[in-house]
Amino acid sequence: MTTSSEDVDAVTEANAELYAAVEAGDLDRLARVWAADTLAESVVCVHPGWPQLRGRDEVLRSWAVIMANTAYIQFFLTEVEVEITGDVAVLTCAENILTSVGEDDDSTSSRLAGGRVVATNVFRRTPEGWRLWLHHGSPVLAPSEGDDEQDD
Amino acid sequence: MTTSSEDVDAVTEANAELYAAVEAGDLDRLARVWAADTLAESVVCVHPGWPQLRGRDEVLRSWAVIMANTAYIQFFLTEVEVEITGDVAVLTCAENILTSVGEDDDSTSSRLAGGRVVATNVFRRTPEGWRLWLHHGSPVLAPSEGDDEQDD
Repeated sequence: MTTSSEDVDAVTEANAELYAAVEAGDLDRLARVWAADTLAESVVCVHPGWPQLRGRDEVLRSWAVIMANTAYIQFFLTEVEVEITGDVAVLTCAENILTSVGEDDDSTSSRLAGGRVVATNVFRRTPEGWRLWLHHGSPVLAPSEGDDEQDD
Repeated sequence: MTTSSEDVDAVTEANAELYAAVEAGDLDRLARVWAADTLAESVVCVHPGWPQLRGRDEVLRSWAVIMANTAYIQFFLTEVEVEITGDVAVLTCAENILTSVGEDDDSTSSRLAGGRVVATNVFRRTPEGWRLWLHHGSPVLAPSEGDDEQDD
């Protein structure tokens, strides 16, 4: 393996920027995280429970809709592992998510809910730095450690 | 892109062998699909709804348990797309699954059920050919095309 710690740091930073952009609800910032140009067509995104979306435009549209419908979201990443070979980096992590759950903008009925998603994020090395090429997030449906938190 | 059609064919074949091995319930055959040796530690597998499993041994153990509890399973792959860069291949596909659903080996209560999973399969080029390095399967929970098939 010829993985440099600088590359690992750069990929970890690019990954953190993905989640920071979603937390900020900033589509322009999110757009800079994703691969573009010659890679735009082959971009793939799977949101938890969704089918695959292909192509940069379709992927960014989906995030715009998700962010427009999310009043508050925060990610706590755990189990972050990075493997780099050549110009491809595969990062896997668990997204521990805190989000607001409300209906019809009625803030009085809004509350916080937690969730756990596991993600595979594949980055490509480009002249502009590491860019996200594939994101696959999926819900963890089975409790992993007898952790059965429940409200009401 | 320097992707050769031979490489794409070889990756597509390795991917087909993954599902053929599971259909056959053949753990030895499945073990040959997965990366080994220096890559064994970094192998990752996400079964639908599961957290990440890491390392070749843990991953193969999980498949042994799943196959021991699956009397019949058949995969119809659609939307297979392969992207290769250097020694890494990213294959995405939809697994249209037909499986037996029964309880306690009571064959009279067993019936077939369908399901849809989307998968990201990352392969590495090794001296022995393309080997599976990461498998991430996740359930498609939302209907994608107004297809709301329901039995009883």
